Amino acid sequence: MALIFSTGNRHKFKEASELAARHGIELEQRGVPYTEIQADELEKISSPGALHACIMLGSPCFVEDAGLFVRALRGFPGPYSKYVFHTLGNEGMLKLMRNESDRAAEFRSVVAYCRPGGKPRLFSEKVEGVITFEARGKSGFGFDPIFIPSKGDDRTFAEMSTSEKNGISHRGRAVEKLFKWYTKKRAKR
Amino acid sequence: MALIFSTGNRHKFKEASELAARHGIELEQRGVPYTEIQADELEKISSPGALHACIMLGSPCFVEDAGLFVRALRGFPGPYSKYVFHTLGNEGMLKLMRNESDRAAEFRSVVAYCRPGGKPRLFSEKVEGVITFEARGKSGFGFDPIFIPSKGDDRTFAEMSTSEKNGISHRGRAVEKLFKWYTKKRAKR
Repeated sequence: MALIFSTGNRHKFKEASELAARHGIELEQRGVPYTEIQADELEKISSPGALHACIMLGSPCFVEDAGLFVRALRGFPGPYSKYVFHTLGNEGMLKLMRNESDRAAEFRSVVAYCRPGGKPRLFSEKVEGVITFEARGKSGFGFDPIFIPSKGDDRTFAEMSTSEKNGISHRGRAVEKLFKWYTKKRAKR
Repeated sequence: MALIFSTGNRHKFKEASELAARHGIELEQRGVPYTEIQADELEKISSPGALHACIMLGSPCFVEDAGLFVRALRGFPGPYSKYVFHTLGNEGMLKLMRNESDRAAEFRSVVAYCRPGGKPRLFSEKVEGVITFEARGKSGFGFDPIFIPSKGDDRTFAEMSTSEKNGISHRGRAVEKLFKWYTKKRAKR
């Protein structure tokens, strides 16, 4: 049986699929409109989200919630990154960061898995980096063109291939944690 | 029995109290941490919010959700105005609006009332205006210092008294609608 990734975001699904293939996991995308609550921490959003999606689907699934937390902007846009990307975009973020010397930021990801009758299980990761002065690159999505991870070279996430980004990124590493746990759990049955 | 306004915001409570007094309604503030969901429309947030608060309190109550919708920013910060005010503040909003000639914006308010066993009843209002080039005034709260309502003179909401702001504002007029309906309903019993 395929594992369901409940998301409407094809970019996220593409990233997760690339990792799933390496674990021999068949992944299925389902755009269930599960409820996301307003909270400052991603855990508080993805945990009830996974529960809701699982109830609606009636089968095991996972959701993923991510956010870009910029230090100089007191964590903005954080849990509201998707909304902020669709309204202000990278251009708006760069405008907010104009004349700002502290460029530190981090991407955080929380993957929440849930099976019918069970409680959500969380897998979190984050990646530190800096906000660029201009957008660079065409890969990925969202704020990828304005974020350079500290663990890489001087390229933005949008200048990396999916597999390269997956090896460093918040989402890639959180999803990888889920897949390792899931594979082990499956082997025990 | 006092009518409960479920809010953690003392400024909102002050504004509503001023109006309640005129209708002979006794208002009580209760900071019930009801769940707010993520949605583009305020109605989708305040309606389940009122239901949740009512279940937790076990008595009739209302909640109010408001947002500043800036046209040039595709409606940003909209439903996330509270979060954006606490992270970017008025300074951040003015930075985003720098060199922007289209200053049009509107404040929207949705008041949702709910009684045990009932469905939420909504009262909505909005007020059009413009975003200033600098913050002015000390009254009110949130984005009041950078918003000039079209129906007033050239003063911002933060340069008006509570009763003056209430007569024009989104929240004042939405709460007024609730109080008129509530008073009529009470008279019938």
